[in-house]
Amino acid sequence: MERKINYYETDKMGVVHHSNYIRFLEEARCDLLEEVGMPYEVLEQNGIIIPVLEVKCEYKKHVTFGDTIIITPHVIGYNGVRLSVRYDVIDKKTGKTVINAETKHCFTSMELRPINMKKKFPDFSKKWEELLENIEGRTHLDF
Amino acid sequence: MERKINYYETDKMGVVHHSNYIRFLEEARCDLLEEVGMPYEVLEQNGIIIPVLEVKCEYKKHVTFGDTIIITPHVIGYNGVRLSVRYDVIDKKTGKTVINAETKHCFTSMELRPINMKKKFPDFSKKWEELLENIEGRTHLDF
Amino acid sequence: MERKINYYETDKMGVVHHSNYIRFLEEARCDLLEEVGMPYEVLEQNGIIIPVLEVKCEYKKHVTFGDTIIITPHVIGYNGVRLSVRYDVIDKKTGKTVINAETKHCFTSMELRPINMKKKFPDFSKKWEELLENIEGRTHLDF
Amino acid sequence: MERKINYYETDKMGVVHHSNYIRFLEEARCDLLEEVGMPYEVLEQNGIIIPVLEVKCEYKKHVTFGDTIIITPHVIGYNGVRLSVRYDVIDKKTGKTVINAETKHCFTSMELRPINMKKKFPDFSKKWEELLENIEGRTHLDF
Repeated sequence: MERKINYYETDKMGVVHHSNYIRFLEEARCDLLEEVGMPYEVLEQNGIIIPVLEVKCEYKKHVTFGDTIIITPHVIGYNGVRLSVRYDVIDKKTGKTVINAETKHCFTSMELRPINMKKKFPDFSKKWEELLENIEGRTHLDF
Repeated sequence: MERKINYYETDKMGVVHHSNYIRFLEEARCDLLEEVGMPYEVLEQNGIIIPVLEVKCEYKKHVTFGDTIIITPHVIGYNGVRLSVRYDVIDKKTGKTVINAETKHCFTSMELRPINMKKKFPDFSKKWEELLENIEGRTHLDF
Repeated sequence: MERKINYYETDKMGVVHHSNYIRFLEEARCDLLEEVGMPYEVLEQNGIIIPVLEVKCEYKKHVTFGDTIIITPHVIGYNGVRLSVRYDVIDKKTGKTVINAETKHCFTSMELRPINMKKKFPDFSKKWEELLENIEGRTHLDF
Repeated sequence: MERKINYYETDKMGVVHHSNYIRFLEEARCDLLEEVGMPYEVLEQNGIIIPVLEVKCEYKKHVTFGDTIIITPHVIGYNGVRLSVRYDVIDKKTGKTVINAETKHCFTSMELRPINMKKKFPDFSKKWEELLENIEGRTHLDF
């Protein structure tokens, strides 16, 4: 996903405020879901949400207003109950890594009760498995 | 309400991003409601929300991280259905006006259907009327 | 400019938080400047910034995550020193007006001193005049 | 530091959006610095900034508008060049852990060049060492 940096996402250091990258990762997840024909809105309509359990982010290079980043999310773990995503984020102009990041999630109902996707939503679950298997040489991660 | 400016509320111009003041006004409204014993959470628990219909904001002086602003909300209009609030926002250090602002609101159910507070919630309505009458020389505004 | 709503731009009312529209307007201004070959970054590189003097926004319909809005900015005032922009913002799906908004700006140096664009930057100024004259039947506004 | 949750910090899930906690951590760091008589603004006036190198955050319980959190930052690493902070964040009402978090930082000039605080700013450096030594049984961490 290509993403321009907005002016309001910078801070007085003159660069993107570090908290905003966490938001960009969410955009990239939603974008990925849309691409594979399983938009997050549709999951929500089915009573599924995917809250964040964990965020890890290493800041490598600063970008700022006028720059564009390219975010590539990789589903690196999925077991029907939990999900793990790694992100490559590079500066479009220089190709350099901007951040390295990883997020962990679970699947829950609107009331935040855990859902086993394999049992309850086998069709959606298959899509997640395909996303996972796109990662070369990866096997299903345990959590 | 006294409010320190956070680092993440500044932008690369080195000052508070103009959109954030709209958020500070919301904080001041919530603070006012709490002060008069009618916290917004309690209104919500009664099925009442107060969406924003209109915002007007004039930017006079910049403040930045390290500064503190004082926001004084004034209920300048209330008729049971609609609400109008004016805000004095000054820099604590200099006493100078930072912004002049006004917001307009209506009262609705969670499903965003209009509520007549006078009929449905006379007790809450009385509080709003008292807030309104605190403004010297003001009478109930028509909308 | 087409703009998808992000999840993090919603609030517990289930719709876009009203403060975020002020940010979307900024995006639309930057987009307009890029389109006419005068990106905001380039203005900044020339020592020009365009702070916001005033914002007015009427909220008409709610949109939320999964929706897309179309923002069309119109330069409705320009006199070399000040600038006024009106925005049509519609829901892409329904065509209905989401907000009506207007912002006023001035041109300043990085130190926030006023700049007369006509005198100091006639080439940029010409672009602004062209943007203004695109508005049918409009003449240069006085402030 | 006590911190009320603002309405605009919630999302359509009805709870604080996960990105906002990263901002709350920054507030807690600034608050800590102020408490020990070394406000971040003063560091900046001396040409020192403390960018974030890494963020790690585990989300344990949701809080929402109307809740108050208590954030306690602990300086768990400092060697003159780098800094590591751990945060206890609890729900004031229940005492339960909301998030567990850790951030890593370096000290740099405004141009983002590394600064050795021990050499360049021994007085400030002493304060950091005292902050570190408040952690029981801790010794100076290596990075």
